[in-house]
Amino acid sequence: MARFLSDNVSGAHPRIVEALLAANDDDHRPYGDDRWSRRLDETFSALFGTPVAVIPCMTGTAANALALSLLAGPVQSVAVHAGSHVYNDECNAPEFFSGARLVPIAGSDGKLRVSDLASFAALKGERHAPQPAAISLAQATETGGVYDCDELAAIGDLARSHGLRVHQDGARFANAVAAIDRPPSELTWKAGSDILSFGATKNGCFMAEAVLLFDPGLAEEARYRAKRAGQLPSKMRFISAQLLAYVADDLWLHNARHANAMARLLAETLAAHRAIEIPELPPANMVFAKMPPDLIARLEEAGLAGYHADGTMRLCTSWITQSADLDRITQALLI
Amino acid sequence: MARFLSDNVSGAHPRIVEALLAANDDDHRPYGDDRWSRRLDETFSALFGTPVAVIPCMTGTAANALALSLLAGPVQSVAVHAGSHVYNDECNAPEFFSGARLVPIAGSDGKLRVSDLASFAALKGERHAPQPAAISLAQATETGGVYDCDELAAIGDLARSHGLRVHQDGARFANAVAAIDRPPSELTWKAGSDILSFGATKNGCFMAEAVLLFDPGLAEEARYRAKRAGQLPSKMRFISAQLLAYVADDLWLHNARHANAMARLLAETLAAHRAIEIPELPPANMVFAKMPPDLIARLEEAGLAGYHADGTMRLCTSWITQSADLDRITQALLI
Amino acid sequence: MARFLSDNVSGAHPRIVEALLAANDDDHRPYGDDRWSRRLDETFSALFGTPVAVIPCMTGTAANALALSLLAGPVQSVAVHAGSHVYNDECNAPEFFSGARLVPIAGSDGKLRVSDLASFAALKGERHAPQPAAISLAQATETGGVYDCDELAAIGDLARSHGLRVHQDGARFANAVAAIDRPPSELTWKAGSDILSFGATKNGCFMAEAVLLFDPGLAEEARYRAKRAGQLPSKMRFISAQLLAYVADDLWLHNARHANAMARLLAETLAAHRAIEIPELPPANMVFAKMPPDLIARLEEAGLAGYHADGTMRLCTSWITQSADLDRITQALLI
Amino acid sequence: MARFLSDNVSGAHPRIVEALLAANDDDHRPYGDDRWSRRLDETFSALFGTPVAVIPCMTGTAANALALSLLAGPVQSVAVHAGSHVYNDECNAPEFFSGARLVPIAGSDGKLRVSDLASFAALKGERHAPQPAAISLAQATETGGVYDCDELAAIGDLARSHGLRVHQDGARFANAVAAIDRPPSELTWKAGSDILSFGATKNGCFMAEAVLLFDPGLAEEARYRAKRAGQLPSKMRFISAQLLAYVADDLWLHNARHANAMARLLAETLAAHRAIEIPELPPANMVFAKMPPDLIARLEEAGLAGYHADGTMRLCTSWITQSADLDRITQALLI
Repeated sequence: MARFLSDNVSGAHPRIVEALLAANDDDHRPYGDDRWSRRLDETFSALFGTPVAVIPCMTGTAANALALSLLAGPVQSVAVHAGSHVYNDECNAPEFFSGARLVPIAGSDGKLRVSDLASFAALKGERHAPQPAAISLAQATETGGVYDCDELAAIGDLARSHGLRVHQDGARFANAVAAIDRPPSELTWKAGSDILSFGATKNGCFMAEAVLLFDPGLAEEARYRAKRAGQLPSKMRFISAQLLAYVADDLWLHNARHANAMARLLAETLAAHRAIEIPELPPANMVFAKMPPDLIARLEEAGLAGYHADGTMRLCTSWITQSADLDRITQALLI
Repeated sequence: MARFLSDNVSGAHPRIVEALLAANDDDHRPYGDDRWSRRLDETFSALFGTPVAVIPCMTGTAANALALSLLAGPVQSVAVHAGSHVYNDECNAPEFFSGARLVPIAGSDGKLRVSDLASFAALKGERHAPQPAAISLAQATETGGVYDCDELAAIGDLARSHGLRVHQDGARFANAVAAIDRPPSELTWKAGSDILSFGATKNGCFMAEAVLLFDPGLAEEARYRAKRAGQLPSKMRFISAQLLAYVADDLWLHNARHANAMARLLAETLAAHRAIEIPELPPANMVFAKMPPDLIARLEEAGLAGYHADGTMRLCTSWITQSADLDRITQALLI
Repeated sequence: MARFLSDNVSGAHPRIVEALLAANDDDHRPYGDDRWSRRLDETFSALFGTPVAVIPCMTGTAANALALSLLAGPVQSVAVHAGSHVYNDECNAPEFFSGARLVPIAGSDGKLRVSDLASFAALKGERHAPQPAAISLAQATETGGVYDCDELAAIGDLARSHGLRVHQDGARFANAVAAIDRPPSELTWKAGSDILSFGATKNGCFMAEAVLLFDPGLAEEARYRAKRAGQLPSKMRFISAQLLAYVADDLWLHNARHANAMARLLAETLAAHRAIEIPELPPANMVFAKMPPDLIARLEEAGLAGYHADGTMRLCTSWITQSADLDRITQALLI
Repeated sequence: MARFLSDNVSGAHPRIVEALLAANDDDHRPYGDDRWSRRLDETFSALFGTPVAVIPCMTGTAANALALSLLAGPVQSVAVHAGSHVYNDECNAPEFFSGARLVPIAGSDGKLRVSDLASFAALKGERHAPQPAAISLAQATETGGVYDCDELAAIGDLARSHGLRVHQDGARFANAVAAIDRPPSELTWKAGSDILSFGATKNGCFMAEAVLLFDPGLAEEARYRAKRAGQLPSKMRFISAQLLAYVADDLWLHNARHANAMARLLAETLAAHRAIEIPELPPANMVFAKMPPDLIARLEEAGLAGYHADGTMRLCTSWITQSADLDRITQALLI
């Protein structure tokens, strides 16, 4: 039992299961020449209201690293938040795929701010330094924050004015869209983003990620790079079928809205304990709670704990979190 | 319909489906800290009769490239057959993961012979040349051949005497074991092989490969390299559960024996047509048939063709091939 | 004493010495912002009759590897002769700098032929294979052969028609130009070559090579890549001054003509011995002589031997070879 | 005229010139098989009082990158000062050669402190993060500071206790040794350092650097890596002869002591102007002077300026700086 540990502990949603099994019915040509994979581009183009090329991937790390390799090369650099997943939790994968350096930008919360990016952008033309090529931001961030449309557009403008490109790590993109409640187009290409790592695994799939290229001219290079990186599965239909089911009938948003709502309920539940402090109501599906060691211990004993450090625990909700889970929190904490 | 195109067109075996769904029942800790992944090492150690460290992978290309990166580094080289998958069909993935050069060795069939490896091994110590570090052979080969124990041991001996290590690309390892009918240990570490890319996808899984390290001392580096390569899935249990079910009760050998037997039947079926020549009875699950253009056309119309070039068609069988499929061949060719 | 071992055993020509010392007279700004380095582009543009961007390098391996990294990337491949220096004697440097694969093309002599390149070019579009991007030929070749204008143009045409680019490893470019006796332009960009590794070290410099870009649009990327590769010396003037002196007043051609002429004399000298066979008169500065073991031993004792294998010895002449050196050969062999 | 811009603007010392010309006297075998190169190991072993393997390099960037590639690999990381040359001025060369990440550590001055390295070392074992493998410090630092023996030993102890290794970027190692006035052994291997990039170019050579391996077991890998990186010059004797002359009769220390002494005089000269502030007396050969824009302008007009930013100018002295140069400063500033 690891319900609140992370959203990656949950299994696949019944509609994803159903889609996977349907794709298992018969033989189909390999390497993306199947009827699920062939529908990816048009499906995501419709979803985002612009031509999109889709590169299915098997992990978020692979998706991010592949995406960045399309925007930055070996004499270049990419600005990232110092607390981001691409910087801290991908074991040099972005550097490996791209050859570029990740430049960590500190910031008060998990977001990149235009003002913090100035010194990065100023290295353009400095012959001894890797050249600024891209900005990679996480939507939602590693601490569950979300960028609104204006914040994204400001980064997009900065990028455009300096000849940089923008990548979004959207491992929890669905939660961000659900939180902001704007069309995905406004949160991506209309705000100046070039590539989105579109996460599906955490929000109801077995294993399915996709690199979405808003500049389809990048697709050919991307497909060869995916192959080179071991991200071209022979039975690609099993990834593609998940992706199609994930966005069909807004399942992705339905799941994310549920997870976000459960996070708010979880925050309220925890805040009801007088020894627990919730510094900020969660916009997405992550709650950070300051609590004393004995409460941490109680949650751990009950199998309800999240990762914690320095007296702050992160708890994640997901598409499968239920009110009974919150009741178990209440019971464990004797609220 | 693409039944004979390749073995990667088939879906997953019912017992693999069942195992996947069982792993979807509840929440489980991520990144391999689940009860399926934790059983991999002991399960494969028992299967091979020696301590084995298991690194699950999502594609055969990733498994091969990861394996080679553990045996050869950036100032080194790896001998491969000129017609092999690692050389021709992995878009520089082995070079990417390892930094080493692949040295293509020509050969009359798809197998590496000790006599062909001498000039490769002789570069040891030549300061201007990448240093020979490993030999990578495919079992079964890209043209469906299999190495017997003596051939493997001869390569193992050559390697040991020159300080080289041996990798096997076992995308179709099950078919080779079924063909040779010897314990897997005799075909691997007892014959001097250090790492096996253990394929499961083609032989009844959705998507599951594993790098098997017969030198468990390589495991720590391997795990970080897997992470760096985007091959550490958060929901690893869905790969691990497939791997466990795949080797449970010899499902892998059962499937492979079936595929091999169907390949022999297919060869006989085709050979019954007087315009078709089968140069060699298939040891594993691949049939090569020389046939005139009109027969190729008929098989293509019937959706029964394999890849073909220069009047020779490759047809693959798999765990799911049935006698009705052979009947359809008979009908299409008016045998 | 190693006079005929290679042309890289010779020292620097007096005019190169003089130029180096002149550049040592005073302080000068670093990293190419000096009056020698600033004249490189115009000097070589004049020499080749077209705009040329010059990237000074310190070794031929670095020049070749840097050049290839501008023409081929990590999902691509480069055709090279199986007996070439870039393939056999640069310890993966081209792969390291570029990420691309070198595809060895066998050939009867050291030259790449259009007919041998067809199967390489045919991989264009094959999704599982590294994509053909460039052809790298050596002028003169590793065995002292030279391409004439027609041969070069044929390769240039092939390249253009397949979207490939052409690199020349010109470690002995001067010897080739001297042998063909045509303007350098006709042997390079007019014949469809995109980049030339222009060697100067072997032909009278201390240490000076240059990557010549006939597409100056590649220069910016090249300069950052040179820096990244440790090929941007702070005191670049000491390389640049050699390069300028090397081409001033046709010193490079003067030296090469001398070396080539001495090679022909050397061949005639050796051929005078009835136990020595010279299969081919040398067009450039390398002689291959078949000789019995006792003659090899005598030359070795006299410090006059070149590299040899299987009873064939390679002897190189250089700008400094003198007739007295030939006399010593005559004496050692008792001709 | 660029006398104070940097120490890399100076030419070669007469004894280095003499050594270079002596090595030009005759033919010699290539690639280090000459009598200068063959003496490097013993010469530097004697100088450091321990077995040292020497890898000559042509630039400091190449030396640093090569050194780091021996201590850290592609799933690892290296702690560096955020203001260091390896981080800011080598355009990803260390990452390129090694595959490792450089982790920038901020600090009040240019030095790494043990207390600042704790969070870096704490990542050991964290599966999602590149693994800490080495610490790279600059001696002297990029701002002219020097580590004393205790500071070095403290870093060495930290490293040993965490299984890390230590590299020193000694582009200005001579200046540091002259400043500390201790034997080079005490400032390197006795203080726990594994590799030193031993700079000679800035302190009186044309172009000569060396990677000094205090663990000679690294030498074989290093030599192949040097070759792969284009750092194995065919006429290596021209680098080796400089290195030998550089350390013969303590020329390196003589030059460095002179430069350091001139820096102190320069600091005093500048401090005599009431509008100029010298925050710190320079231990090595770099002076930082706060001065108003009109004084900066006057120095620039006189060709005596160094790099400056935010009203602080860096001025470097070198082996060739003379008191007449200081007089010119006095005149230009009307002191």
